[in-house]
Parts: sequence; C-alpha cells; structure tokens
Amino acid sequence: MPSPFPDIHISLPAWVGTWIEQQDTTDFENMEGRMRFVIGLAGENIRTGTGGPFGAAIFDGTTHNLLAPGVNLVLSSQCSVLHAEMVAIMIAQTILHTYDLGGGGLPPVELVTSTAPCAMCLGAIPWAGIARLVCGARDEDARALGFDEGAKVTDWTGALKKRGIETVVDVCRRDAVELLGSYKEAGGAIYNSKNG
Amino acid sequence: MPSPFPDIHISLPAWVGTWIEQQDTTDFENMEGRMRFVIGLAGENIRTGTGGPFGAAIFDGTTHNLLAPGVNLVLSSQCSVLHAEMVAIMIAQTILHTYDLGGGGLPPVELVTSTAPCAMCLGAIPWAGIARLVCGARDEDARALGFDEGAKVTDWTGALKKRGIETVVDVCRRDAVELLGSYKEAGGAIYNSKNG
Repeated sequence: MPSPFPDIHISLPAWVGTWIEQQDTTDFENMEGRMRFVIGLAGENIRTGTGGPFGAAIFDGTTHNLLAPGVNLVLSSQCSVLHAEMVAIMIAQTILHTYDLGGGGLPPVELVTSTAPCAMCLGAIPWAGIARLVCGARDEDARALGFDEGAKVTDWTGALKKRGIETVVDVCRRDAVELLGSYKEAGGAIYNSKNG
Repeated sequence: MPSPFPDIHISLPAWVGTWIEQQDTTDFENMEGRMRFVIGLAGENIRTGTGGPFGAAIFDGTTHNLLAPGVNLVLSSQCSVLHAEMVAIMIAQTILHTYDLGGGGLPPVELVTSTAPCAMCLGAIPWAGIARLVCGARDEDARALGFDEGAKVTDWTGALKKRGIETVVDVCRRDAVELLGSYKEAGGAIYNSKNG
C-alpha cells in the first residue's frame, strides 16, 4: 500500500534563479563579495515575501563558484527546519549526490551565511562536510531582532575547529545587521515557536 | 526562467506504511510502547537497508496517537540533514500545515527518539514546537558505535526546559542499545562526514 504519510517537497522561490543571473559573479572572488551575495538573497527574500531575513550559499572553496544558494523558507513552506543554511546544504547535496560535501574527490566547500548559524544549523554543519563557515551578523544581532538562536556551546567556533572546520565571523557585519533591521522596520514576522 | 537549482524530495521508505499497519497501536498508551515502536522503526530501517539505526516519531501528547514517523535517511537519500527526528518533524509539519507544532489550537506533541538527539536535532526541537522529548539510548551509546553526536551544551535537558520542553531519558535504553549493537555487528556504515 502507498504510505499514508506525505512526501516533503522543497523548492527555492521562483525569483532565485533570475535574481542570481543578474549578479556579478566576479565578486565571488573575494569573501566580502560572497557575503554581499547572501545578504542580497536575504534582502530579496524579504522584498518578495518568501521568508525570513536570512540568506546563505555554498561555494566551491577553491574556484569560489556558487554551488547552491539558500534562503529562509520557514514561513512560506511552513517548515521550521528550512533555515537558509539547511536549504543550501540540502540543495548542494542533491546536486552532488552525496551526504558528505567534504568527501573524497570533492573540493573543500564554504558555507557563507548572512547571520551566524543557530543551534540547529550549527549542528548540521559538521555532518554536511563543510570545510569553512563565513558569518555576517552575530547571534546577538539576531537575538536583538527577537529571534532565538538556541543553546549553542559557548565556544562554538572552537567546537567546529576541533572537527576541522574553519570559521570567519563579522564579514560585512554592518551590512548584515542593517538588513536585519530593515526586516524589523517592515514589521516582518518573528516566527519562534510558541513553545520555543 | 526555471530555477537552475534542483528541488528536494523526501519520501519515507515504501515499507513504513505497511509495517506500521502491523503494529499494535494500543501499545502507544504507555511511553515504553511508544519507545518500542521507534526502536522497531530503527530495526526495520537496518533490516531493509534504508538507513542508519535510528527511528523517531511524533505523537499527539494527549491521545498518544501517532502523528508522524521518521527514520534515518542519510545514506538512502544522500542528505546529511535527514536524521530520524528531522524527518518526523518535517512530515508532522507537512501534515498539520504549520511550522509550529506547539501553536494555537494544536495538542502538545511528543517526539520519541530511539537515541538522544545529536546537536542538529537538539537545535531543531525548540523551533518545531515540540512539548516533550522522550529518548532511548544515550549520546554515549551512539558515540560508542562511532557516531559523532556533535557539540551539545552540557545541560541540554536544562536548556530545553528553559524553553518549556520536558525531556525523559533512558526509556527502554537496554533495548535501544541492543539495536545499535546489532547494526554494528552487521557491519552497518558509520557515516560521519570526513570533515566532521
């Protein structure tokens, strides 16, 4: 008999492909350019109403080519798991047909995120095989907006380092924080769970 | 233009619906019965080769009816996010059309998992609106098998409690550990990322 439980389908919003085509990919050569790109994704996600003020992307750590973008889809998909980082990870793994982006034969991959990862996304990073994490806004910036970042170990960059993952923080932080502020000013939904 | 990035499709293995039909749902009235059910899911996941030795399910916390099952699909889906708890959460949210299982008008929901959640799944629990978490095997039991549970805050049950989430540990732990052992004996893959 067919399973009585539904399948799960996750799609990027329709605007993502077109918007990315319009970006200057030569900017990807430097870390700030890659961060501006994910802040841009977050901004479009606000503007088009497809989700929260968070963008992320996975880049080839050697060529700096874009591998997979991600935007926060919690509200539009009604799924609490779909933070921008999780979406980017799942798309990259779908493209490369592997649960381990750090596996044999692949270049090291970099996850760039407009705000430092919450407890869930932080936990997902080692499992996904990410080699380098690049963060814009800090936890405290997201919390100032009203989002709960969850219970992260105090030295979370150290915990990643123990697993061979490098972290760079505060990249274009001012721009990232400004974007978060614009979401709040526009009356964007702060979607913590009632229990959370 | 259509997005050049793939959609993500997640399906429970075909055996899940049939197997669940064969279970005695009157057992769900007690916590041990619900734990035996998720250990059973983990066992079938090993036997059929659809994934790692982990099962989970979300129950209505009032009636104890099954809402959504989950099994580990990391290997079969080649997606590191698809731990049993994450699958159960995403299916429950798909069924109820809400990112907040603790939201208005819904009964409190319980997440039962055959092994205590890793850092990622632990982080996902508050966002999903879970009211109660019930765990079988401990972190240390999974680590003894070779799985990395990630960097969890030391007092993780206390961190959940602060967010209004009750945790019950060591439910049928012996059975849960025995199941993990059977996976190891059968030469089951330990699929940490090479970087992780």
